[in-house]
Amino acid sequence: MANILIIGAGRSATSLIHYLLQHAVEYNWQITVADQDLALAESKIEGFSNATATTFNAKDPEQRELFISKADLVVSMLPAFLHIHVAKDCLRLDKNLATASYVSEALKEMHEEVKAKGLTFLNEIGLDPGIDHMSAVQMINKIRAKGGNINAFYSFTGGLIAPECDNNPWHYKFTWNPRNVVLAGQGTAKFLFKNRYRHIPYSRLFVNVDRIEVPGLGTYEWYPNRTSLTYREAYGLEDIPTILRGTLRHQGFSAAWNLLVQLGLTDDTYVMSYADDLTYREWVRSYLPSRIEKLNISLREQLAILFRIDVNAVELEQLEWLGLFEEINIPLDEATPAQVLQHLLESKWTLEPEDKDMIVMQHEIEYTLNERQYKHTSSLVHIGKNAEDTAMAELVGLPLAIGVKHMLLGNITAPGVIIPITPEIYNPVMEELATIGVRFSEVETELTQNS
Amino acid sequence: MANILIIGAGRSATSLIHYLLQHAVEYNWQITVADQDLALAESKIEGFSNATATTFNAKDPEQRELFISKADLVVSMLPAFLHIHVAKDCLRLDKNLATASYVSEALKEMHEEVKAKGLTFLNEIGLDPGIDHMSAVQMINKIRAKGGNINAFYSFTGGLIAPECDNNPWHYKFTWNPRNVVLAGQGTAKFLFKNRYRHIPYSRLFVNVDRIEVPGLGTYEWYPNRTSLTYREAYGLEDIPTILRGTLRHQGFSAAWNLLVQLGLTDDTYVMSYADDLTYREWVRSYLPSRIEKLNISLREQLAILFRIDVNAVELEQLEWLGLFEEINIPLDEATPAQVLQHLLESKWTLEPEDKDMIVMQHEIEYTLNERQYKHTSSLVHIGKNAEDTAMAELVGLPLAIGVKHMLLGNITAPGVIIPITPEIYNPVMEELATIGVRFSEVETELTQNS
Repeated sequence: MANILIIGAGRSATSLIHYLLQHAVEYNWQITVADQDLALAESKIEGFSNATATTFNAKDPEQRELFISKADLVVSMLPAFLHIHVAKDCLRLDKNLATASYVSEALKEMHEEVKAKGLTFLNEIGLDPGIDHMSAVQMINKIRAKGGNINAFYSFTGGLIAPECDNNPWHYKFTWNPRNVVLAGQGTAKFLFKNRYRHIPYSRLFVNVDRIEVPGLGTYEWYPNRTSLTYREAYGLEDIPTILRGTLRHQGFSAAWNLLVQLGLTDDTYVMSYADDLTYREWVRSYLPSRIEKLNISLREQLAILFRIDVNAVELEQLEWLGLFEEINIPLDEATPAQVLQHLLESKWTLEPEDKDMIVMQHEIEYTLNERQYKHTSSLVHIGKNAEDTAMAELVGLPLAIGVKHMLLGNITAPGVIIPITPEIYNPVMEELATIGVRFSEVETELTQNS
Repeated sequence: MANILIIGAGRSATSLIHYLLQHAVEYNWQITVADQDLALAESKIEGFSNATATTFNAKDPEQRELFISKADLVVSMLPAFLHIHVAKDCLRLDKNLATASYVSEALKEMHEEVKAKGLTFLNEIGLDPGIDHMSAVQMINKIRAKGGNINAFYSFTGGLIAPECDNNPWHYKFTWNPRNVVLAGQGTAKFLFKNRYRHIPYSRLFVNVDRIEVPGLGTYEWYPNRTSLTYREAYGLEDIPTILRGTLRHQGFSAAWNLLVQLGLTDDTYVMSYADDLTYREWVRSYLPSRIEKLNISLREQLAILFRIDVNAVELEQLEWLGLFEEINIPLDEATPAQVLQHLLESKWTLEPEDKDMIVMQHEIEYTLNERQYKHTSSLVHIGKNAEDTAMAELVGLPLAIGVKHMLLGNITAPGVIIPITPEIYNPVMEELATIGVRFSEVETELTQNS
């Protein structure tokens, strides 16, 4: 018998919990679902055997010690900054650990100690990070196995709204952490293109964005991520001339988002102690240069002048639809611009109960084989059931659950702080995902000499 | 007899140390100059009596205890982040303290305790902050005393190069902390204009800057500071419709600096582990959008297209003069863009030994008196002696020294963590500064009804 402790029972944990519970009897697992909210934990195990729900405060060292010491494997679905406490307890108490989150610097530093104890801390096995790693490395290794020489690696992911539920001028709704969406791209995007380092600062990130074609779905736009270079080594692409990871959005999103960035509404570095003295309209006006603000014309006309666009431009429709031109008081005090914007967006970009989200992931690999150039495109499109059972939550939880199963079955035993970039992890996980409908479509095209 | 401990003997402490030493016999002071560098401390007291130089490590609690306990008043010229340790010791050991630095949040929190002990911690009594506070509040109170009603307060300060030593296309050299110059304005500038809050994000801060006329000197450009609103309360201007503080630069500085900002070269948020693989030219190219970078034209022509300026524009001359277009390897590894830029600027914007810096400070106050509108302009222009005895160092050190004198004479006794915005501080300090040639010129003009 193995005891599994799952810490955190929120939306993103549902598919993980259900998968493990469905296999609990078969594999003789005893599962404890621990959450601050006991009712939530109980609701997730309803109708299953081999399961206990418990209230749990992850910040309480005694509670962590009590529960972790009784487990054989711990799954942490906590907010990322809390993982490290759980990880330290797991190391001290000799327990294996699995998470869907990025390996933090602090966790990375524990690698040698974890390895020395023969423990496995498997991380980044959700969607992004997770399925992106596994599908990319699998594809890279397949191309190399047949003798291909990889020249370029592109990878795009977007958490979007399904076309049938797309009913606002931004063609976007929040399907994940709204704060991350508001702050996305702050800093500078870095990637390699034809053996040259490329940098795109935040102020130009959403300007003139490029597009890709997703087979069977249509054209989407994308902007480069900050961290493309991070994956060179992990993916075994140290010498690749071109590596770029990007975020997908519906066409027209970036041009309008760029106006919010240029105005300064996404800044998170200062608090407006006077936010509640302002209406949204006054707030937007406060960012206009004086020479424009003093013109006796409408705010929309002022913005058209500032951004040198037509007063009827769709971007201005998008801003107006958000309520930014309205004389309604900002309901927040002591908030940063980013927080004010997030608050407004949360009231507009809300998933309705029956809304379906859509995950799109696409890798494009250009390679040379027998002196001919090829492009391999593999795409995943996955649509959620409703606002509760989202594609996002499913694709974060299922790979993690399958990974946990293989850890308990003794198929994943590499010691240390690891991510799923080795065949003994990605092969069984991707294979099982395919059997439940999470499957990449592959397209192979030969490139002409000059493309 | 009073014992004065001066911690820090760098360039900015020279005028302070000399002023106090010149008055040491008269007032029966015993002065200890403490610095990590004993030779430096010794050089500063050479030729004076009543003085001791000592080596001192400000991070060592035992050394601080030893020296602070023997002092009656401590002057900290340490880097700002170290003040708090000295301040805590002064509180514990019942000693008065003086600094030329901003009151940090941590120091502000000590106010009640300092007050309860009847101690005085006088801060922000240098140039900016310091002379700016004192001269502004003095002028504000003078206008109010005659019945004026203040409508607008503008204040501009610049640490510049004296016209006779201005021999580069930027018309600028470093006369103070280079890092602060490179990062200046990051975030969002905030001010009040005609009862409206105004925000200018960093990406638009150096675009279309405004100008002011400094009487007798000429036209300078300025960009707004981030913190104009901070001074409303301190200056007694809670209900003022317009308050704005700005930084002065020679005309043409901002247009060129804006190109560096737009390119992304001032970003301090990420480290380029590959910086030493790049030449300056390759580094600049890495920030060009692909559509421009791939054009088979010169880098200068590419920048002209990106910024929609003429290929012969002076801004591009300024960039070229810095060496940004040269195929010379970046000599730094693991550096942020801001650090690379600072390193390059430090080699170009260096004060030659005989170069003179120039401080310009100008306040403009608009007020109503007997239903007529007036504008009061007061300006300070102060030129340094050479690269060692700078105007900057003199104007930071002298007000502090005079403040220290009046603390020791019992003329400044307000308990708590204070700044020089009360008449018993600013009147004697400004009066004595005037006697040694640091004097504001005042111009009073009547405004026409519609200006």
